[in-house]
Amino acid sequence: MATRNPLNIGAAARAISNFGFLRLRVVNPYSVAFREARSAVGASALLASAEEYKNVAEAVADCALVVGTTAIRHRELQHPLRRLEYGARLIRRQLASSRIALLFGSEKRGLSNHDLGYCHWLMRIPTREEHSSMNLGQAVAVCLYELVREAKAARPAEKRQPATAGEVERITAMLFDALLASGYVRPGSAACTHEKVRRLVRRLHMQASDAEVWLGMLRQIVWKLRTGQTADLLGII
Amino acid sequence: MATRNPLNIGAAARAISNFGFLRLRVVNPYSVAFREARSAVGASALLASAEEYKNVAEAVADCALVVGTTAIRHRELQHPLRRLEYGARLIRRQLASSRIALLFGSEKRGLSNHDLGYCHWLMRIPTREEHSSMNLGQAVAVCLYELVREAKAARPAEKRQPATAGEVERITAMLFDALLASGYVRPGSAACTHEKVRRLVRRLHMQASDAEVWLGMLRQIVWKLRTGQTADLLGII
Repeated sequence: MATRNPLNIGAAARAISNFGFLRLRVVNPYSVAFREARSAVGASALLASAEEYKNVAEAVADCALVVGTTAIRHRELQHPLRRLEYGARLIRRQLASSRIALLFGSEKRGLSNHDLGYCHWLMRIPTREEHSSMNLGQAVAVCLYELVREAKAARPAEKRQPATAGEVERITAMLFDALLASGYVRPGSAACTHEKVRRLVRRLHMQASDAEVWLGMLRQIVWKLRTGQTADLLGII
Repeated sequence: MATRNPLNIGAAARAISNFGFLRLRVVNPYSVAFREARSAVGASALLASAEEYKNVAEAVADCALVVGTTAIRHRELQHPLRRLEYGARLIRRQLASSRIALLFGSEKRGLSNHDLGYCHWLMRIPTREEHSSMNLGQAVAVCLYELVREAKAARPAEKRQPATAGEVERITAMLFDALLASGYVRPGSAACTHEKVRRLVRRLHMQASDAEVWLGMLRQIVWKLRTGQTADLLGII
């Protein structure tokens, strides 16, 4: 809507492409040179195919739902104003079956009351009250992200194989050896320190591929501590 | 991290301010004039207080958790790579009790392997594979939004008072009158049409403050249809 800065159109195009929404409509852009927008890294095709409209009515004519974005309340309009988290849920439900327009206003003024008249409801990004107005390209990115995010994006299957208890215990023993050899363990407190070290090592959640490396390093340290010599065959990372 | 475009630092600052995270640290910015960043609308104070560091180590020294952001996989690093939705959950859990660094790389190259060495784990925004790399300012905005979003941002308490059943029925009757008077209702199908109209009007979910207006408009229409005259006293919106 009447964007003044081609950089912002470019940024919007990039976010649209990033999140897999492949259509951009531009209403009455301030600069006719908007296709030269520079910040559309990777989105030049989308920008080239952007459709230009003279007014909102034409731009949203084939859309079943028109949602306006705003940073402020328009009390006089009686439009429901929904937080992005909730609004996006409503949009997602309809997205598979119908075309939906997300309307963003110009940088300076946002959407006019006239533009808002074409909206079924409004949506706001939960910015803080003292500084609610977002940059256009960033607002587009945040809204589209919310549409594609997966609430249940669970902890991914970790490819990291945790070290076995046996490996961890060997490391514990070797570390305790090193602490003994270095004089860290106070006389009479060996058993207690050993327990502490055991728990300490467990808290590392070491992975299997690292266990051997740690063991090698510790073995080298212990050797050095015990003999004062360097064992060239050990401790190779 | 070695950002080349002051506009991007400004955009990052603006997003940080929008979402209420009030600290920005800049490592080795390309342009010393970064404080002149123009797109930091409303975030000039934050930008002015941005702290400059020579390297990552110093920038993250007082942080309990360092999370790197990346658009690509760094298989060789064995860092857990988490989707933003899940990663942000982990971050939120620690955010109240400790200082956390979110690391963003330079526009061209992202984070270097050296920088990644300071990270506990990595996080990626769920962009599509064919165009995964986001604009820096937009990536910052999306990550911070995910940190402040409220999963349970429920449907807000609607302030709109729905029209009462009585009001809706009066509107139904008036509309049916208008349809009768206009010849819309076919002979013999009046009852059936009335039923259809009743359901049609219910589906509007009309609000109380609008009911009187609708009734006035319909009353005017019916009057006109019945008499051919204009009733000046009715139908005032």
